[in-house]
Amino acid sequence: MKKQHSTIPGSVTVARGFRAAGLSAGIKKTGKKDLALIVSDVPATVAAVFTKNQVKAAPVKLDMQHVKSGTASAIIANSGNANACTGKVGMIHAKAMAAAVARRLGCRDEEVLVCSTGRIGVLLPIVKIEAGIKKILKQISRTGGHDAALAIMTSDTKPKEVAVRFGKWHIGGIAKGAGMIHPNMATMLAFITTDAAFSRGVLQRALRHAVNKSFNRVTVDGDMSTNDTVICLANGLAGKPPLPAFQAALDHVCLELAKMLVKDGECVTKFVTVEVHGARNDRDAEFAARAVCNSALVKCSWCGGDPNWGRLMDAIGYSRAKIVEEKVDIAYNGVSAVKSGQPSRTPVAKVRKIVKQPVFTIRIDLHLGHGSCTMHASDLTEAYVTFNKGE
Amino acid sequence: MKKQHSTIPGSVTVARGFRAAGLSAGIKKTGKKDLALIVSDVPATVAAVFTKNQVKAAPVKLDMQHVKSGTASAIIANSGNANACTGKVGMIHAKAMAAAVARRLGCRDEEVLVCSTGRIGVLLPIVKIEAGIKKILKQISRTGGHDAALAIMTSDTKPKEVAVRFGKWHIGGIAKGAGMIHPNMATMLAFITTDAAFSRGVLQRALRHAVNKSFNRVTVDGDMSTNDTVICLANGLAGKPPLPAFQAALDHVCLELAKMLVKDGECVTKFVTVEVHGARNDRDAEFAARAVCNSALVKCSWCGGDPNWGRLMDAIGYSRAKIVEEKVDIAYNGVSAVKSGQPSRTPVAKVRKIVKQPVFTIRIDLHLGHGSCTMHASDLTEAYVTFNKGE
Repeated sequence: MKKQHSTIPGSVTVARGFRAAGLSAGIKKTGKKDLALIVSDVPATVAAVFTKNQVKAAPVKLDMQHVKSGTASAIIANSGNANACTGKVGMIHAKAMAAAVARRLGCRDEEVLVCSTGRIGVLLPIVKIEAGIKKILKQISRTGGHDAALAIMTSDTKPKEVAVRFGKWHIGGIAKGAGMIHPNMATMLAFITTDAAFSRGVLQRALRHAVNKSFNRVTVDGDMSTNDTVICLANGLAGKPPLPAFQAALDHVCLELAKMLVKDGECVTKFVTVEVHGARNDRDAEFAARAVCNSALVKCSWCGGDPNWGRLMDAIGYSRAKIVEEKVDIAYNGVSAVKSGQPSRTPVAKVRKIVKQPVFTIRIDLHLGHGSCTMHASDLTEAYVTFNKGE
Repeated sequence: MKKQHSTIPGSVTVARGFRAAGLSAGIKKTGKKDLALIVSDVPATVAAVFTKNQVKAAPVKLDMQHVKSGTASAIIANSGNANACTGKVGMIHAKAMAAAVARRLGCRDEEVLVCSTGRIGVLLPIVKIEAGIKKILKQISRTGGHDAALAIMTSDTKPKEVAVRFGKWHIGGIAKGAGMIHPNMATMLAFITTDAAFSRGVLQRALRHAVNKSFNRVTVDGDMSTNDTVICLANGLAGKPPLPAFQAALDHVCLELAKMLVKDGECVTKFVTVEVHGARNDRDAEFAARAVCNSALVKCSWCGGDPNWGRLMDAIGYSRAKIVEEKVDIAYNGVSAVKSGQPSRTPVAKVRKIVKQPVFTIRIDLHLGHGSCTMHASDLTEAYVTFNKGE
């Protein structure tokens, strides 16, 4: 299908009828922004995808209830504290956040979604947050998306925002990531808004499709968090677009945000795209790609710019994908390194030059079928370890 | 059962009728020892466990054929080169190593097992190795076990040797590890010899049992190698011992060697024992323990001495083990950190003091059943990344 969307400047407030803000409520000791609010002028159809972790933060549990109503008017999110492993008090706090927003917007509590991200096992400073909510409701504006993007950051070094237009419709999104970034999501939040009109079922299927091809195809450190949430609000103010054009635009927004998560992963220096082709099926291709992208040894060699393809062979060999050693080809940016399971004649220096670059693509051909999978991964650096050692 | 074995000084040559040697054949550029030979004076019953990686080094493929004969007289092993991803030439080289030993010992080629460890995808310097084999056959002695242990080292910093006696029987073992250390083994080799007499079937079951509780319960970096091999030779010169006493002694030898692998993992600073209790079943307990032991974030916090139990909760939550957040207890060296899924009242400083130590035990109680699993893991350090970055 021909691409019909174009990227435009903007953020989560690009679509009609959305306002947002971000401010410091005093949760982060640094004084940086830590409270974000996104509001739709009219109740929006809601779709959401949550972490599959069995340990779910209180706001995730609450949102799983709230999205059942099918519509939402606002998302309130804090950074600096995950409100996870906080028991009954944690749930009371999450509900209090929703209620504080709903009371002032004049909507039902169920129409407010709550997200938290940060350290696990610490109670929220709920009094500060309630004061922040009172304040932030007065600040929401059509240009507040950027501040909201800043306010959901934890160890991110930059805000992540995407906006696209197709015909008269818009989709805008913000996200945060950094650590615990893994397929099936991570300590990652993504909020996507659109003025397109869709039923809940169609919107949920579209979001699930986009997430599977984006947030579920990136990895930084292989840990999946307790708070991962992707929410899409569709307020319908621009009417109903053709579904294929909408899906393509939504896929684009999710993939761009997902790539930003990897590029801004904690202390990473490389952005590597791993394509597996010729697997028995797509599932096998995904197993192989994930094994490569999550191997500590592979990621260390990327960090050092070392074309150590033996570690890739090793990783696909122990993955759950069926492989036949003698059939495997591996190429870096199109330059062959492995042919039929053995070193090809390419001078190592030529491959090393590619791996020394900050961005490159590895293509693995298994020659067993038609399954394929593309993933985006970072390297593993000394700085990542240093960053995650202490408190 | 009462423990009947006692640890004694010695190595892989402690059992009657075994001789060994280690020398430099010039495979390693450093000039360090890189060729090891272990010989039994009489054909020994052989049992072996190999890597499950689908990419298997040539010597592994060869040994899988050779062990079918049921007996072996020698193990020839080189370090510095894995002879993996080396195609037909690699297999010819592995066969040549076996043949060179067999010719001089006067046994069949099938009675010689071959092991290689080191870099993947490089052809063996077979001429140097054949010259080395000629030389090493003249050097084997009853005290050569230590030299053999030195000769199989790659990035290991010290040789790994264990010897035990029970009644009139002996078991001796050597191993090498360092990187790619993972459950289901790793770039690890372990050679175990005994003067006990057993049929092949009994010996294989005993070895499998011991490996499952030892080498398959340790992890350094989560990568499983192409060359992993554990071989046990039983030459029967001391007659047939009671099986329970033999099994206990063999379990001990394997577990001690496995622990040495973790303690001498590449650039590690911590030795952490993770016990999961109260899982629905042993399989679930293993899933939970592995998720914890393989989490990059958990391992980083161990490195920094940070009692970040939220990362443990997160890891067991995304593992394939069934857990109920509100039932989970976590203790460090018996000091409670998490009670019913939430922080316990223990001062954080008290737990931090434990995690700052080089050796500690984490006990996780799921309170869902009677399944349990114990694993031994290392931390993840900046030095590990540095070590594995380059060539």
